[in-house]
Amino acid sequence: MRTTIQDVIDTILQEVPGAPFEESVDTFKAGDPSLEVTGIVTTFLASYEVIQRAVDLGANLIITHEPIYYNHLDEVDWLTNDPVYQAKRQLLEENNVTVWRFHDYWHLHKPDGIINALVTRLGLQIIDPKDKRLYTVPELTFEELCQRCKDKLGISNLRVVGNPHMKCGRIGLFAGWGGAMGEPQIPLLSKRGADVVICGETAEWTTCEYARDAVASGIDKGLIVLGHANSEEPGMQDVVKWLQTRLPGIEINHIPAKDPFRLV
Amino acid sequence: MRTTIQDVIDTILQEVPGAPFEESVDTFKAGDPSLEVTGIVTTFLASYEVIQRAVDLGANLIITHEPIYYNHLDEVDWLTNDPVYQAKRQLLEENNVTVWRFHDYWHLHKPDGIINALVTRLGLQIIDPKDKRLYTVPELTFEELCQRCKDKLGISNLRVVGNPHMKCGRIGLFAGWGGAMGEPQIPLLSKRGADVVICGETAEWTTCEYARDAVASGIDKGLIVLGHANSEEPGMQDVVKWLQTRLPGIEINHIPAKDPFRLV
Repeated sequence: MRTTIQDVIDTILQEVPGAPFEESVDTFKAGDPSLEVTGIVTTFLASYEVIQRAVDLGANLIITHEPIYYNHLDEVDWLTNDPVYQAKRQLLEENNVTVWRFHDYWHLHKPDGIINALVTRLGLQIIDPKDKRLYTVPELTFEELCQRCKDKLGISNLRVVGNPHMKCGRIGLFAGWGGAMGEPQIPLLSKRGADVVICGETAEWTTCEYARDAVASGIDKGLIVLGHANSEEPGMQDVVKWLQTRLPGIEINHIPAKDPFRLV
Repeated sequence: MRTTIQDVIDTILQEVPGAPFEESVDTFKAGDPSLEVTGIVTTFLASYEVIQRAVDLGANLIITHEPIYYNHLDEVDWLTNDPVYQAKRQLLEENNVTVWRFHDYWHLHKPDGIINALVTRLGLQIIDPKDKRLYTVPELTFEELCQRCKDKLGISNLRVVGNPHMKCGRIGLFAGWGGAMGEPQIPLLSKRGADVVICGETAEWTTCEYARDAVASGIDKGLIVLGHANSEEPGMQDVVKWLQTRLPGIEINHIPAKDPFRLV
């Protein structure tokens, strides 16, 4: 049976309550959805290198969580004559690769596919299934929680604020950009009693300064910044197994985009 | 002669073209400007610890670049019953410390006090005095430029994207949050021909991904993320000397807030 790229997307949308939505960033960013799918790659972000590796695998559909052209809506007017944009677009066109973004829908899946991956890998326990922000965990120290994040999510370095020996039993959880402007990260630490917030990104005058003042004034609070890519890659890895049961016979692989930064 | 805290602020405002402005975040965040000034501390951000150290020095005016209550406008309604907010406010009140923010005015001083500190420390050369974004530098490798940032700005770790051996002669420069959403950081690398952008913060799906794609497609571009605090502390250190010439006889010290994060 011939399965088109559009068939793949339709299969995904059937699993998301209320989908498709009139407004969503989850659109085709390149390619032709009427083509027969030859293989699927999932990734945090279809970088130039991820596209090259997908082509090597014979895949012609990349399911990316984040935009491919450096802005939320993948607007390209401002990039028309940009050599980096042109090189990436050419790579996609020459290899007939279609890119579809799976951001809003995966977050709105029940449970949130990105958050659920963190919850399961970190061994967090759900308090209220309707609340994806607050969890419990069998008590451990902040130092142990940091190590668990590194081990279970494969992260080399974390940026953290917090007393290594503080006890952590209640965790606030964000992925990606979520809550980066301080609200609602800070109220989780405050009103909702989280000991620690784990997040992808955070603006550097908000939650980190709240946690720093908390520690300095004798109130045990902590913050663990995973990095945006590190916090959402596991959720895109989980798309593989989730999709394989719905599309048997199609090769589906995860290619991690990995953290864009190196530390010097 | 009795010098009040308000006199100090008036002295500063005389140096800023067009000041005071009707709208600015540069307001008093705590205290009483009619008091006689007993000493001044400048800092990137008046954290709990910086306030304690200022009190130890006998200073009753802290000049802070960033907000003290974790949001751009220092709004506090959402923090009314928050124990961290209460502890910080109590520390300020009990010690009669006044906090004034010096953000917009220092950036709008000619030259921008924050950017100028980076330019002088990093040995950058101005191309156009009206353009505070683009500079030249006697050619060095990306690796050498990273090391210079660490050495000259006292930073332990940088997050970077770029080929260590690439030649850098043209530098795009931002501090703090500037350009973090990708525009205008990316056009500096693209249309304006910067080899490297040096910045305080950057959202992790914008400039870093542009630089990563550039490198992968054979175009030498680089990004150095200093950290928000690291990028603006030198500019607040420079306030001391700048202000000492205008307020002889008043003790003025810089207390670095330092990077809020530690790396694990």
